[in-house]
Amino acid sequence: MYMGKVIGSIEASQKDQSLIGKKMMIVQQINSDKEAIRYEEVATDTVGAGIGEYVLLVKGAGARKPNKEISQGRDVVDCAIVGIIDRFNK
Amino acid sequence: MYMGKVIGSIEASQKDQSLIGKKMMIVQQINSDKEAIRYEEVATDTVGAGIGEYVLLVKGAGARKPNKEISQGRDVVDCAIVGIIDRFNK
Amino acid sequence: MYMGKVIGSIEASQKDQSLIGKKMMIVQQINSDKEAIRYEEVATDTVGAGIGEYVLLVKGAGARKPNKEISQGRDVVDCAIVGIIDRFNK
Amino acid sequence: MYMGKVIGSIEASQKDQSLIGKKMMIVQQINSDKEAIRYEEVATDTVGAGIGEYVLLVKGAGARKPNKEISQGRDVVDCAIVGIIDRFNK
Amino acid sequence: MYMGKVIGSIEASQKDQSLIGKKMMIVQQINSDKEAIRYEEVATDTVGAGIGEYVLLVKGAGARKPNKEISQGRDVVDCAIVGIIDRFNK
Repeated sequence: MYMGKVIGSIEASQKDQSLIGKKMMIVQQINSDKEAIRYEEVATDTVGAGIGEYVLLVKGAGARKPNKEISQGRDVVDCAIVGIIDRFNK
Repeated sequence: MYMGKVIGSIEASQKDQSLIGKKMMIVQQINSDKEAIRYEEVATDTVGAGIGEYVLLVKGAGARKPNKEISQGRDVVDCAIVGIIDRFNK
Repeated sequence: MYMGKVIGSIEASQKDQSLIGKKMMIVQQINSDKEAIRYEEVATDTVGAGIGEYVLLVKGAGARKPNKEISQGRDVVDCAIVGIIDRFNK
Repeated sequence: MYMGKVIGSIEASQKDQSLIGKKMMIVQQINSDKEAIRYEEVATDTVGAGIGEYVLLVKGAGARKPNKEISQGRDVVDCAIVGIIDRFNK
Repeated sequence: MYMGKVIGSIEASQKDQSLIGKKMMIVQQINSDKEAIRYEEVATDTVGAGIGEYVLLVKGAGARKPNKEISQGRDVVDCAIVGIIDRFNK
């Protein structure tokens, strides 16, 4: 899993049906010093994360697990916010 | 998921059967400032995206989900355009 | 699989249900000379690894295998500590 | 999917059974200007691509789809040539 | 698939049950000129590769295919040596 910061969102009127009703957040990957690393991605939000919050990101098939009840398997999502990080212990 | 810009397409007369009839677009990955990052990929288009448009990309097994009815499981696609981005909110 | 060093942990009160009760460690990827390479990730711990220890990391679907009995398939984890490295033989 | 150029092949007498009889080509990833980018990989060939040809590459589970009849599920391949690129339209 | 060179091994007394009895080799990824590229990984050996040998590597779910009889599905491995490279033809 990756640490990230929510920096915005995208709007897409034309999209795959499995994305309808989902919030699609722009997320900047960070390290544990909250510095930006690597690149931005788009993640669906499953925990109510807001702009500026530090979040935990899951990629790949794991990103489709939180949505199983709703989308019943036909789910294109490959990146999801699965936690809001309260604290980095180092 | 990734943000990208459609910059072209490829033609391939000899290809896997599951790719026949699919539009294969050349996509440049971008960040939320619409700057090119990383590298180009080839994505199948499932939402009617045109050259120059900003799109949402899905990679891996998720890229095979939008095509399930047509290809019935034997689908080699690992990158798909699943949305057209109307707006970046930051 | 990757070699890493445990450098901390994160706390997240709001998170996916499949993460409740799991220790989420911040891990710095290393090479076999114990030098930091690439970037940090967050991994669930399945072997009792502590801060400062060198560990073996698994990514993707493999990271969900050690938790199968507990989480019964609805598991978002995509990175797990699956071993504590005692020795690098070179 | 990725664009690549076939630059050679490898020979391996000792290998996993699912690789026996498969052509294993060395492929250099390229961009749409046919410039080398990133790194080389080894891909099985399913479309009869020759040295010097520009090809379409699939990675991950998608790379095991073209071989399903032959290998019946026990297939280690994670990168396959699934098309020969005739033309880059930009 | 990737080309690599076996440069060592790791020892881990505490590890996931599916790793017990497996040789875990440190592998440096290489290009077809046998130059080190990218980074080191740890791969299980399924073909009897020794230190200094050039090998073919598989990542992700494909890396769990050679072990199916032994581990019966509960297998955390995400990188495996699946061939010994005798020759690079270019």
